[in-house]
Amino acid sequence: MEGFNKRIGLDDINPNLLGNFAYGIRIFSDRAFEIEDELKKGIKKPFDKVIHATLGCCHSGGQQPITFIRKLLAGIVCPSNNLELKDLPEDIKEKTNKFLKSVPGGSIGSYSQTNGIPLIRQLAAKYIEERDEINNVDWKNIYLTNGASGGVFNLLTLLQDTTKEKKVGVLTPIPEYPLYSTILDALGMTNVGYYLDEDNQWGVNIKELQLKLNEAKSKCYVKAIVVINPGNPTSQVLSKSNIEEIIKFANEHNLMIIADEVYQMNIHNDNLKFYSFHKIIRNLNLSPNNITLASLMSASKGFLGECGLRGGYVHIYNMDKEVQKVFEKLLILGLCPTTFGQAALYSLFSTPKENDPSYELFLKEKTQIQMELKIKAKMTEDAFNGMEGFSCTRIDGALYAFPKITFPEKVLKAAQSRNENPDNMYCRELLESVGVSAVSGSSFGQKPGTYHIRITLLQPVCVMRELFEKIYNFHQNFLNKYK
Amino acid sequence: MEGFNKRIGLDDINPNLLGNFAYGIRIFSDRAFEIEDELKKGIKKPFDKVIHATLGCCHSGGQQPITFIRKLLAGIVCPSNNLELKDLPEDIKEKTNKFLKSVPGGSIGSYSQTNGIPLIRQLAAKYIEERDEINNVDWKNIYLTNGASGGVFNLLTLLQDTTKEKKVGVLTPIPEYPLYSTILDALGMTNVGYYLDEDNQWGVNIKELQLKLNEAKSKCYVKAIVVINPGNPTSQVLSKSNIEEIIKFANEHNLMIIADEVYQMNIHNDNLKFYSFHKIIRNLNLSPNNITLASLMSASKGFLGECGLRGGYVHIYNMDKEVQKVFEKLLILGLCPTTFGQAALYSLFSTPKENDPSYELFLKEKTQIQMELKIKAKMTEDAFNGMEGFSCTRIDGALYAFPKITFPEKVLKAAQSRNENPDNMYCRELLESVGVSAVSGSSFGQKPGTYHIRITLLQPVCVMRELFEKIYNFHQNFLNKYK
Repeated sequence: MEGFNKRIGLDDINPNLLGNFAYGIRIFSDRAFEIEDELKKGIKKPFDKVIHATLGCCHSGGQQPITFIRKLLAGIVCPSNNLELKDLPEDIKEKTNKFLKSVPGGSIGSYSQTNGIPLIRQLAAKYIEERDEINNVDWKNIYLTNGASGGVFNLLTLLQDTTKEKKVGVLTPIPEYPLYSTILDALGMTNVGYYLDEDNQWGVNIKELQLKLNEAKSKCYVKAIVVINPGNPTSQVLSKSNIEEIIKFANEHNLMIIADEVYQMNIHNDNLKFYSFHKIIRNLNLSPNNITLASLMSASKGFLGECGLRGGYVHIYNMDKEVQKVFEKLLILGLCPTTFGQAALYSLFSTPKENDPSYELFLKEKTQIQMELKIKAKMTEDAFNGMEGFSCTRIDGALYAFPKITFPEKVLKAAQSRNENPDNMYCRELLESVGVSAVSGSSFGQKPGTYHIRITLLQPVCVMRELFEKIYNFHQNFLNKYK
Repeated sequence: MEGFNKRIGLDDINPNLLGNFAYGIRIFSDRAFEIEDELKKGIKKPFDKVIHATLGCCHSGGQQPITFIRKLLAGIVCPSNNLELKDLPEDIKEKTNKFLKSVPGGSIGSYSQTNGIPLIRQLAAKYIEERDEINNVDWKNIYLTNGASGGVFNLLTLLQDTTKEKKVGVLTPIPEYPLYSTILDALGMTNVGYYLDEDNQWGVNIKELQLKLNEAKSKCYVKAIVVINPGNPTSQVLSKSNIEEIIKFANEHNLMIIADEVYQMNIHNDNLKFYSFHKIIRNLNLSPNNITLASLMSASKGFLGECGLRGGYVHIYNMDKEVQKVFEKLLILGLCPTTFGQAALYSLFSTPKENDPSYELFLKEKTQIQMELKIKAKMTEDAFNGMEGFSCTRIDGALYAFPKITFPEKVLKAAQSRNENPDNMYCRELLESVGVSAVSGSSFGQKPGTYHIRITLLQPVCVMRELFEKIYNFHQNFLNKYK
């Protein structure tokens, strides 16, 4: 037999998948779940419970699902002739019926169109028009996907090219939500990192972009830039002028912009506003306009936090028409995005208006979630800035804190002698000794010589307090240990 | 700018996605939906409605969802404290609670484990043990996916290698459900087709496999074989001895077996039984055993037909442990499979037992769906065998008929002069002139000089009768036209 002569082994599989290819986030969260199991089995630990602050997963931290969303979804799953949903408010019944009329056979169990259900794409277009105060958003440019990550995978696959001598490169932020680098690795593409500017509230520095692009040119064809706004893990909300600069840079260098805007509904700073790349590009009236924009949104974040349902969309703007046809063909590979994820987006874009029977409860639940996040953002920022050795930038948006830690020389040496990143060592010991599960800055990337941890804002306020206390105590012990 | 100097265009994107890359199925079904829209707009046609027989989509043909499945799913979406599901039967309430206890935060809106929710993987393992009358199915070898197609994509990505001089090849059946060739194209892999034996009820001929493998060796590294059983579009149910032969062949040549067994619950011939590759491999006790098996299953077919929810699994057996670890890393790219698709599988593997409050209605609905399919399978077989110019093999399983059409010389010449495949021309005219939407054999591949059409068995019995009548009349006119 040619090529190989045993059971399919490591030599026979995709070389892009070998090597350093995994989420640091998952490593910490997996260990946290393991420890939780060990506690359940009665294994003694210096703590009696794990506080999870690793995954951006709203409901697992205890956030309650929004009643309106869930009733609408239940109505769609069980139309009234099957299940006696007599108690469904009239507005929800109407919206249930509107959805069911728009799907083949009147069932959510039918395949939808490959690009998603037209009704939902139309509602998303209307949402974008209102958000951006702009007309003429073409719903046919909105593609529903399995979470935003499904869209990211398809966009990067569209740009992949393994036939050329040089690889295809994509500019991605450091620190970065590691989905991007993981997919780039898997596709055999080059990750061209650019540092965010921590001293300027994690803004994007155009000189840095230019530098990294110039350096990369000899090694790869850079075809796109990823921007995450509001930031993960860095929680910044980019200013209008910063976004303008990024757009002009991308236009000059013919880069596709992949704007990860999944936290657009999570703004905690009343003095700031979310500006979409779409809005700013259209307002700029560039000439020539070489920009191709792909903006990502999701039902996983915001106030609903329905992560598991995998509802997301990609909004394409100003893409070459022939390229867009190829993108559409690519979507056929998954047959259709999950119809229930699509229904989650439908519910997000059909929330009750004043005077609707469901309005009052909806508003109450939504406001409470948003208020609590705002309180926790401020509380977390203050807690870290009040601890010696920590400093934390403003938490303007998203669901995370990413404070910097200054380690004394002894800690750095101890880590070096173990061949471990200092912040990995810190997070590992934090988890093993007090049961707080956070993610190290190295898992996201950071400027050499700086160290961070990421914690999520998703636990209830009282648990967050406990978490700070535990980190505070741990931190003193940790420093003493290495003194 | 190096590499390109305008907006991202066709030169800048993935060359694997250019060229002949699309489902024939979608071309016919898209046109059918277009015609339906035209009818709605009042455009005159020689018919007043479209009969859809292209997509294997159960509910869009009018099959009703199973009440038990939908009530359980609604219960999971809306736990009792939110929605007054007072009317849920006790057994469904219990199963709802069991599910919710097994997911983080007690919400289906949380991310699940990347490999799927352990409870559901365990239930799937139990299902396989009962189905195959075998013990010790390890639930950790079962990975939940976004439909079976999500699993196919990951399995083929695992085998992809774009760094070698020769491409990676995969043996796939002709006729074939074109998902496989489409994904292989997109991944830059080589599709090595082997003909199924129409004269032997579409069985797999080992000499044909050997021939195609030998021919392919100089061009590519053949690493896997895809077998679809029960067949799509060919509706055969493979015999135990044929499966044994295939396994021995794969073992001799160190091929991974990708067994697409999504129609395992759709057997219409009482004299036949579904044998899984897993069962036969384990019973064979091969030595040496070089087989790597990946078996695919789905919540989209069978009696529930919940296509849109995208619930599926891959069951891995005897895979090299290191390779399996890489497969697991690959799954991280999608974060987690849709939790609602997972819940659909949960409901499939938790159906009521005798004496459960939901049993009677469940059994009635399930039996009715299965009986109707059986009736339609026989009816369709007979209808085509009774029409001059058609011959149809037994429809033993799955959801399709794939009759052969013998075209007179004049038709072949007319098609040739239009540069169109004769069966494409046939299906196009069938749709445009009588409103019946079927798929041409060329869309699946077929032996040169033979022609087929595929129709689905999913319309109600009365509509199926109408469909045969329309095809019969069309066929006479079609032949007269070209005489």
